[in-house]
Amino acid sequence: MNLTVTDVRLTPVLIADPPLLNTQGVHQPYTPRLVVEVVTADGVTGVGETYGDTKYLELARPFAEKLKGRRVSDLNGLFTLADEVAVDASRVSEAVDVGGLRGVQTADKLRLSVVSGFEVACLDALGKSLGLPVHALLGGKVRDAVEYSAYLFYKWAEHPAGVRAERDDWGAALDPAGVVEQARKFKERYGFSSFKLKGGVFPPDEEIAAVRALAEAFPGHPLRLDPNGAWSVATSLKVAGDLGDVLEYLEDPALGTPAMAEVAERTGVPLATNMCVTTFAEIREAFTRGAVQVVLSDHHYWGGLRNTQQLAAVCRTFGVGVSMHSNTHLGISLAAMTHVAATVPGLHHACDSHYPWQSEDVLTERLVFENGAVRVPDAPGLGVELDRDRLAALHRRWLDDDGTLRDRDDAAAMRIADPEWVTPAMPRW
Amino acid sequence: MNLTVTDVRLTPVLIADPPLLNTQGVHQPYTPRLVVEVVTADGVTGVGETYGDTKYLELARPFAEKLKGRRVSDLNGLFTLADEVAVDASRVSEAVDVGGLRGVQTADKLRLSVVSGFEVACLDALGKSLGLPVHALLGGKVRDAVEYSAYLFYKWAEHPAGVRAERDDWGAALDPAGVVEQARKFKERYGFSSFKLKGGVFPPDEEIAAVRALAEAFPGHPLRLDPNGAWSVATSLKVAGDLGDVLEYLEDPALGTPAMAEVAERTGVPLATNMCVTTFAEIREAFTRGAVQVVLSDHHYWGGLRNTQQLAAVCRTFGVGVSMHSNTHLGISLAAMTHVAATVPGLHHACDSHYPWQSEDVLTERLVFENGAVRVPDAPGLGVELDRDRLAALHRRWLDDDGTLRDRDDAAAMRIADPEWVTPAMPRW
Repeated sequence: MNLTVTDVRLTPVLIADPPLLNTQGVHQPYTPRLVVEVVTADGVTGVGETYGDTKYLELARPFAEKLKGRRVSDLNGLFTLADEVAVDASRVSEAVDVGGLRGVQTADKLRLSVVSGFEVACLDALGKSLGLPVHALLGGKVRDAVEYSAYLFYKWAEHPAGVRAERDDWGAALDPAGVVEQARKFKERYGFSSFKLKGGVFPPDEEIAAVRALAEAFPGHPLRLDPNGAWSVATSLKVAGDLGDVLEYLEDPALGTPAMAEVAERTGVPLATNMCVTTFAEIREAFTRGAVQVVLSDHHYWGGLRNTQQLAAVCRTFGVGVSMHSNTHLGISLAAMTHVAATVPGLHHACDSHYPWQSEDVLTERLVFENGAVRVPDAPGLGVELDRDRLAALHRRWLDDDGTLRDRDDAAAMRIADPEWVTPAMPRW
Repeated sequence: MNLTVTDVRLTPVLIADPPLLNTQGVHQPYTPRLVVEVVTADGVTGVGETYGDTKYLELARPFAEKLKGRRVSDLNGLFTLADEVAVDASRVSEAVDVGGLRGVQTADKLRLSVVSGFEVACLDALGKSLGLPVHALLGGKVRDAVEYSAYLFYKWAEHPAGVRAERDDWGAALDPAGVVEQARKFKERYGFSSFKLKGGVFPPDEEIAAVRALAEAFPGHPLRLDPNGAWSVATSLKVAGDLGDVLEYLEDPALGTPAMAEVAERTGVPLATNMCVTTFAEIREAFTRGAVQVVLSDHHYWGGLRNTQQLAAVCRTFGVGVSMHSNTHLGISLAAMTHVAATVPGLHHACDSHYPWQSEDVLTERLVFENGAVRVPDAPGLGVELDRDRLAALHRRWLDDDGTLRDRDDAAAMRIADPEWVTPAMPRW
């Protein structure tokens, strides 16, 4: 068995994304992702996935070169390697900031997001080489299925007229009735029983009404609302007060640890985050101040599956809950999330996933939600297989793009419908 | 490849220990350890090692039964298994407390210490089955050798007359000159360049003089003093003041987080611990209060090598250093320590090891210190091999013992020389 990396392939793709609204704008019709393939001397190929914006690609390319000649089992060494890939921090621009939706943007975090794609690919290759599922490489699953939540969005029925886009059959959701209708579809199609609404789109009272409508339609189901930091402390406290009886948690009501700590101190509603704690460096202050009660890990941000386990250990040590955040992603990342989530003890909240919104994938078989959960694959590696034709087609779309869609920009997408749109100053309400 | 556990062998042994002094008494001439062997369906045997006192054995036996039929790759599941092994917490008696030298004694920690022996044995078997060294199962080494420190002890030339014991050639060390002489031997034989003195034996001024003598004999070498919590806050601060210019750190000068926090607040000398932070539950308060600057991990306490990595992640997140503690142990545990230490980034302090004091081992080849370091084994598993004749002989000693040595009791050992000896009340000075 030869675990040495002999080839690395990077394939940027553009995947269809519905017109999902958030406080910064709207999803573009196509979102960039990067598919990473790592090939060993034995001809075993492992796959990984991460953000595909230009800045990520610029780091991934030299990283891929450095990976050749190393072993896929050398996972701790990936971080040393990442340090060696020179980063011009000044080039970490707003272009990949998505208006702050991904939390603090630092060169270090950008590097970790790139590492994550390679780490997952290495784990997949290692698992295939050894005949073990990825979860076994992470110490073994402690559950056979991982529960996910329905990720509800305010959305338009379709992207603006004249824009090239794929159609979806979800319809519009722009008021409480539309949100409830969307939730019903989610429940019917996938069996989800937890519901998260992406908020920060409409004035808080409208979103409160939407969550209240969900609570009435789905009594006893865990509900969450996530305005991506769009609210002041006062607004956050008002929403917490109004919805405290039905919320499982409130996600990133306000921006940054000081504001979150102030909210947390004055409400009994748990606060979750994927914005104020997105790096290990942010943990100390946030945990010491009690600013967050649940960290929504994203293995891309945190540098891979093993770092996600370490994050979970830190959270457990400090009595902070842990669950998972998601951005637009393919089945590779859903498989990766499922493997690592299967190994984390005390996962008390269903994980988020955009996957149901993604009509396109690069796999021969899509992953399936049954009763709101994904079964943990026991096949070697991630347990997924690339569909090379699909990959080639989605890469072709990336190649054909004139550059406007290669960096996710929700505000630019919004300006197509509303030329006056400017990214709102925070707090918006 | 079949990773299912088909057999588990537990072999308690008694191993020779020199008359090493500490604040509670003196090491017995023989110390109990437990050798764990896990056999897979393919006939692969993995070895582990942990404490061998009666209370550990009582937990290890039902644990071993439960392990059969599970896979050696199912490492996260070991903790679930441990929870299932009923523990009558009331039976966690002083008998295994060693006068508090091992820090807080709880049923949970006892369980974790037992798990550690099985976890290491499973990792060894898994590595041998897959053809990978244990460090590769932990994400890969980030260094090729692990540095250890000389573990200096005040000691008698031999155990009390009339007591059955093995002889050693280290001679007595009961004053500064004796300590310096011992350090010279350590440096000469093993190449160590960091020195730790186990203190709490003589009044602080004598120990200050010993450390000062070490500083003069070995200028610029990292020095540490560890009185096992024998001092008051005021005494701790006096020692820190007197030795601040030569100490790398002061280890457990006072007992418990509040006292350690008080010392830490009033000295610039870093405080290390293997007593006030020995479980994940103790971290939060200690780190929040800044009570410790270096945690000396012991993979036995913490539940194995993967938990040690998690501890290191928690420490890194909070800007706390990490290194390793050691009790009397065999080469199996030294190999285990070396594998995990090889994977921990930012290991800025040489690890402790009693191994040079142990003239007996159960391996076909002893591990070797070169220039104060152990090379990280790259052979499959731990890279060590059991010498079954040696194991049988040391087990025979355990079988022949009338029970007096099967539980480590430093105070009882001291009473043989000094019938008036009572375990000192803390703080002793």
